[in-house]
Amino acid sequence: MNNVNASIITIGDELLIGQTIDTNSAFIAQEFNKIGILIKRRVAVGDVYDDIWQALDEEARNADIIIITGGLGPTADDITKPLLCNYFGGKMVVDQEVLAHVKYLFEVIFRRTGPMLESNLKQAEVPDVCTVLMNQRGTAPGMLFKKDNKVFISLPGVPHEMKGLIKNEVIPFLLKEFTMPVIVHKTAFTAGIGESFLAELLKDFEPTLPSHIKLAYLPNYGMVKLRLSTVGEKKEDIENELVPYFEKMMEIVKEYLVWDKDEGLEAVIGKILLEKGKTMGTAESCTGGYIAHLITTIPGASAYYSGSVVSYSYEAKENILGVKKDTLEKTGAVSKETVIEMAKGAIRTLQVDYVIAVSGIMGPDGGTEDKPVGTVWMAAANKEKVETLKLNLRFDRQRNISTTTANALNFLRKFILANS
Amino acid sequence: MNNVNASIITIGDELLIGQTIDTNSAFIAQEFNKIGILIKRRVAVGDVYDDIWQALDEEARNADIIIITGGLGPTADDITKPLLCNYFGGKMVVDQEVLAHVKYLFEVIFRRTGPMLESNLKQAEVPDVCTVLMNQRGTAPGMLFKKDNKVFISLPGVPHEMKGLIKNEVIPFLLKEFTMPVIVHKTAFTAGIGESFLAELLKDFEPTLPSHIKLAYLPNYGMVKLRLSTVGEKKEDIENELVPYFEKMMEIVKEYLVWDKDEGLEAVIGKILLEKGKTMGTAESCTGGYIAHLITTIPGASAYYSGSVVSYSYEAKENILGVKKDTLEKTGAVSKETVIEMAKGAIRTLQVDYVIAVSGIMGPDGGTEDKPVGTVWMAAANKEKVETLKLNLRFDRQRNISTTTANALNFLRKFILANS
Repeated sequence: MNNVNASIITIGDELLIGQTIDTNSAFIAQEFNKIGILIKRRVAVGDVYDDIWQALDEEARNADIIIITGGLGPTADDITKPLLCNYFGGKMVVDQEVLAHVKYLFEVIFRRTGPMLESNLKQAEVPDVCTVLMNQRGTAPGMLFKKDNKVFISLPGVPHEMKGLIKNEVIPFLLKEFTMPVIVHKTAFTAGIGESFLAELLKDFEPTLPSHIKLAYLPNYGMVKLRLSTVGEKKEDIENELVPYFEKMMEIVKEYLVWDKDEGLEAVIGKILLEKGKTMGTAESCTGGYIAHLITTIPGASAYYSGSVVSYSYEAKENILGVKKDTLEKTGAVSKETVIEMAKGAIRTLQVDYVIAVSGIMGPDGGTEDKPVGTVWMAAANKEKVETLKLNLRFDRQRNISTTTANALNFLRKFILANS
Repeated sequence: MNNVNASIITIGDELLIGQTIDTNSAFIAQEFNKIGILIKRRVAVGDVYDDIWQALDEEARNADIIIITGGLGPTADDITKPLLCNYFGGKMVVDQEVLAHVKYLFEVIFRRTGPMLESNLKQAEVPDVCTVLMNQRGTAPGMLFKKDNKVFISLPGVPHEMKGLIKNEVIPFLLKEFTMPVIVHKTAFTAGIGESFLAELLKDFEPTLPSHIKLAYLPNYGMVKLRLSTVGEKKEDIENELVPYFEKMMEIVKEYLVWDKDEGLEAVIGKILLEKGKTMGTAESCTGGYIAHLITTIPGASAYYSGSVVSYSYEAKENILGVKKDTLEKTGAVSKETVIEMAKGAIRTLQVDYVIAVSGIMGPDGGTEDKPVGTVWMAAANKEKVETLKLNLRFDRQRNISTTTANALNFLRKFILANS
């Protein structure tokens, strides 16, 4: 069986001047991967007629399926729809189903009174050579074209609308149209060891892998993911082949192993707490709510997560967490003593089984000779016990916050496992 | 003067299976834009020899400068360095300055004792046809090649290292090598009006723009940014030409105007509070700390931000914010009454001038017939006054959190401006 390849073309000046980060491509890649389609290339071009045309020509040579996102809005800077109409040699016609849908959205969902704009009605015009993919979440329809045995699919760039179309229209279509091989990935999450030292541990293991099984090292905020990937015809067969290699790899790195799935630490901790029937909370100074945010991205987190006291000021640390004024004055907000009192205060105030408390200097300002930017103290606690950890980071503000958060979640995870 | 164009090639399987979101390209685009270099295309390819080679050939035809990121790690899945050596017809040699730097990092900074690994020493090998760009933040050096009048620059994919090299090595080199035109963007932030209705308001204005001034509509979580861009030789001249158009545009959309800069609401609120010498805090249920996180991404936020009570549980709402058990039982956690009590409690507990409190149902579960997923109540308050707002969202969990946060920040901004 031949591999089915896809290429993604994203359109929009905002992608080329750095105003927007492209998260659409990652979503499309994940969904395509699940059904065995490999993304071979991703190309971003601006709202420039010739550049879009050239990208369509080139990517049709590179792949079987060309996914185009963006450039379909109702405003004048969006030129993709007429371009596609010319590219595939069609003419623009009003699609009655799309028109009815646009009217429904405006009248019933958006509850607009006054008349609709011409630009909104134009959303219902499509090239007569395309198959319309209905967009339940917005006014711009998806469009599917075929040319020289290649499939071209144009989708709006708004992530929420694009996602709906991929799941409800594009994936079902591709499953009918192509026979796909199966791709299986298995990912192990490690912490506390660098990429090159992991590779050294695995240097005798790696050459034992068959050529169709690939090992990748994916560094991620001081942690490294190890991913084994394989391709084949039957999921069961290739998984059966992959699993022993994966288990052997986990055995080799077991000292550093966090989890045997490609999941964030926030999901890992959630599962451990649900299993044990325990609860947790957080007391954050320097991370400013980012730990809480990650934890609450997990649906159902309210079953084990009580909340966070984001105590950015001295007053919040004293009033809500009961940190002593004396401690703050003598040892400062970034100290072992302060994070211990923050952790104990959070256990009491939030009435939970476990907490993690962090305080640090994220930069760019606020550092001193004793405590330079990147100094972080954290404490993990339950009702009986507190443990502390100090970090010395040397990144920019954004990365200091992310790295502190990853370390705090891992420190808490280990504390829960060791004290339950 | 001719425009100087660049193309970005990012290398790594993780980009094509959706495991990693490419934030590097946006950073490079922003930095290049500041010095007048336009990014024409961005291409992502996997760790595949032929695909990387093809991308180098193609992008050299598309641009004057080709930036390559990723694929330089010490492990076997990184194939870029030997490929570049072949592509530019060189041979690998040890660079003594890089070697000394790698040793310094290991001994002094990472404080490793034992011997260095061969893979680490290999980081000091570079093709003899490149100019080495010293990477102060890691072991993999940047490399600069020239071929057929084009400049190729290879950088590590680790964001922190790539950023240091761009700022300290690449930009200074390009400023010496090329004579660049100046690009000026001016961005206005609007809220409360859709893209097509903005375009309707601006339909007489847009045709008055000279052809070298471009207007773009950039939707962003229920807000829309309007960006005017222009290119020329002297910054002062083109800015003088652009400003009257920008002011006219702002006048037309003034009812919906949030801010006349390309800045997030969290930065806008920070500036307002600093100017007025006031403080704020947050009380978050459904947003789970995301409002606090955005506010604390701004350096110096501690001058006006006291903290957040992330009250995910009933207990946290009662114990820390003083929400009455009776209110929670009668009206539920997602109600006008509860957010008013949360806001009043936060003003007291956090001892601040302004607060925003939010409570809602983000999904996928937890909705009822009365209060479906997407129901959100929020309250903005100072010591004398409380105002509330209800949202009915219909997105997925992630986007419900982001959209609630954007709306909460804008609601708070308007409340501060109206009540100070």
